[in-house]
Amino acid sequence: MASVRIREAEEGDCGHILRLIRELAEYEKLSEQVQISEEALRADGFGGNPFYHCLVAELLPAPGKPQGQGIGSKIIKKVAQVALDQGCSQFRLAVLDWNQRAMTLYKALGARDLTETEGWHAFRFEGEAMRKLAEK
Amino acid sequence: MASVRIREAEEGDCGHILRLIRELAEYEKLSEQVQISEEALRADGFGGNPFYHCLVAELLPAPGKPQGQGIGSKIIKKVAQVALDQGCSQFRLAVLDWNQRAMTLYKALGARDLTETEGWHAFRFEGEAMRKLAEK
Repeated sequence: MASVRIREAEEGDCGHILRLIRELAEYEKLSEQVQISEEALRADGFGGNPFYHCLVAELLPAPGKPQGQGIGSKIIKKVAQVALDQGCSQFRLAVLDWNQRAMTLYKALGARDLTETEGWHAFRFEGEAMRKLAEK
Repeated sequence: MASVRIREAEEGDCGHILRLIRELAEYEKLSEQVQISEEALRADGFGGNPFYHCLVAELLPAPGKPQGQGIGSKIIKKVAQVALDQGCSQFRLAVLDWNQRAMTLYKALGARDLTETEGWHAFRFEGEAMRKLAEK
């Protein structure tokens, strides 16, 4: 089994992070929503007051099966550790309703589907609607 | 009609903010989920690396009808301005599926219901599940 190391992202990872964002968006059939550049990822995550924090998984290849290293679970466990260290009482994930594989994993790790159990919907303002709002 | 002023919250507002959080949670039938103290609100929002930003609406009483000042719309417009100033391409809100009044307002202002149109569900890790995850 390959060895996996979870660590904080560095600015030099942004090219790889953007590639993974695009691969995820393709899987989610939402590629047209990815408009961010590597430069913007660098500026947003590694300036004085970062807009996001990011963990990356480094996979050291080893003989054997190349899939199923449990990287998703390992990253979510690390997020739980970081959240508790920072004094957070919870953390949230967004998942598409047809992505049963992700939903099954999150529930197995102890998450609750708030949309299903409490009825939460996510609303988004963007583009022209956002600019019109700001002008009023 | 009363005059409304939208401004950034200050640390001294935290007592009023906590009262409004509790009133909202009561309306949402989720009062048991409000465990934060005024001290934690102060520490989380007004330290060196704040966990949240907050706008408040100051209402100067005037003769006439006390309701329907459009405070919700005014705050959302201000959020759009702040978001654009900060270089954000979108912002999101969470709303309960039975809160038709809020949903109608957000849609009228140009928001899209991502849960309805794309199928996004919100998942939450918290409490014992989060601590167990972090220990593994």
